[in-house]
Amino acid sequence: MADIPDSHPRKASLLSRQSMTEAAARGLLAESAMIAHGRGEAFDYLLGERTVDSAASAISEAASRLRNAEKPVISVNGNTVVLAGEDLIRLAAIIGCPIEVNLYYRTSERVSGLLSLLHEQREAVSSGPPPEGWSGDWKKGVLSVDILGADADDRIPGLEGPRSLCCANGIGSADVILVPLEDGDRCEALIALGKQVLVIDLNPLSRTARKATVTIVDEVSRAASGLVVGALAEGDPTEWDNEGCLKDALSAMMANQLNAF
Amino acid sequence: MADIPDSHPRKASLLSRQSMTEAAARGLLAESAMIAHGRGEAFDYLLGERTVDSAASAISEAASRLRNAEKPVISVNGNTVVLAGEDLIRLAAIIGCPIEVNLYYRTSERVSGLLSLLHEQREAVSSGPPPEGWSGDWKKGVLSVDILGADADDRIPGLEGPRSLCCANGIGSADVILVPLEDGDRCEALIALGKQVLVIDLNPLSRTARKATVTIVDEVSRAASGLVVGALAEGDPTEWDNEGCLKDALSAMMANQLNAF
Repeated sequence: MADIPDSHPRKASLLSRQSMTEAAARGLLAESAMIAHGRGEAFDYLLGERTVDSAASAISEAASRLRNAEKPVISVNGNTVVLAGEDLIRLAAIIGCPIEVNLYYRTSERVSGLLSLLHEQREAVSSGPPPEGWSGDWKKGVLSVDILGADADDRIPGLEGPRSLCCANGIGSADVILVPLEDGDRCEALIALGKQVLVIDLNPLSRTARKATVTIVDEVSRAASGLVVGALAEGDPTEWDNEGCLKDALSAMMANQLNAF
Repeated sequence: MADIPDSHPRKASLLSRQSMTEAAARGLLAESAMIAHGRGEAFDYLLGERTVDSAASAISEAASRLRNAEKPVISVNGNTVVLAGEDLIRLAAIIGCPIEVNLYYRTSERVSGLLSLLHEQREAVSSGPPPEGWSGDWKKGVLSVDILGADADDRIPGLEGPRSLCCANGIGSADVILVPLEDGDRCEALIALGKQVLVIDLNPLSRTARKATVTIVDEVSRAASGLVVGALAEGDPTEWDNEGCLKDALSAMMANQLNAF
């Protein structure tokens, strides 16, 4: 793909697409990953490719629930690592929680490819500057983030086959799980276990979006960057009205469409 | 991909996705094709995966303009051939016009792969039943459809590089062009030549949708099947209000979203 000029109004979206195409060529993504990315592009287009107010509230709520969790974990798939891996490592370092590679279409090749990429990203993040507001040894904090997924020694009850696998010291024992780009079945299975499920999903009508405890209707890299800021803030979780939040996101999309003519 | 039960409410969409995945594996599609398909899926989801009233009017208008054209042509790319090739061959047989393979990311491998697939589809359509309302020798009509694209001996002024190539006896000399899934630049260039450009685009806000003479906001296989019916109807083109049609499609999406809660 050619260089995209800085002036291009949709530069961020085009760069994300480029990263996805490269990751697909490296075998890091499932067959359906590019289609899922395209669906996301369409919803983000309707949102105006910006974090709307209700999404900003959801980001702040999710960050607060991660901060206040007993045993939080961040579950990532291929698209998430490619698009937002570095910021999710920053988030894990601030929260002090592990990251688990957990794939719907699990193959050992893709799990190990994504683990390698996360290790590269952790190295890069540890050498970079700490986020504003962080105090302490950033390099040490980042390098202490556990990256799980190689040994899936537990199962999510209610699911069948490879998609049910997880790590006992990750998703298996977590009380609060951030799962960007999760599918409906797994979101439901995790909720049924009494866990808090925080998702990032651009489709406010999806089963995942409706079932989750907190749904961030935003593009995953913008949401991850907002969660890093939120993780360094203070405050307790609220009584969260997730349906109200989804309706607000839909209204934002509709207002945006109406303004287009 | 597993068998999809007949009872699945989104069976048609999942079958289309399966065809696309297979075509990608055969090298028939550009890198960006799956992402484009995913964007389409998202918009079709918002539409309720049905042909809304304004789309039905646009289909009827487009069919009428094809019937009344001096020199109509149907321009197809990879996604179009895979998803709607057979119905577009039926349409070409009824209208009596050629089909031109014309690719934005043109490579000779993909052009010849798509030409082969169209020849297979033409053979299959010629052996099948004629559409209701057809009189005459169906097999002969279908086999007389010219499939162009191998020799791109003309250029669309205003475009650069391989994407500017076209066939002199196809797009080059046509007065009315049906271009499902076209990009904005080419749509604009064809309009600038004074041609009527009829497009099928699920995003009512896209540049293509706004620039075209008639925009059918519908999934390409449903639209193609509707065009076959429309091609056998009668009547003259109208004063077409394309902006009104786009607004209606947006309203249908919004109404659908509001009903979701």
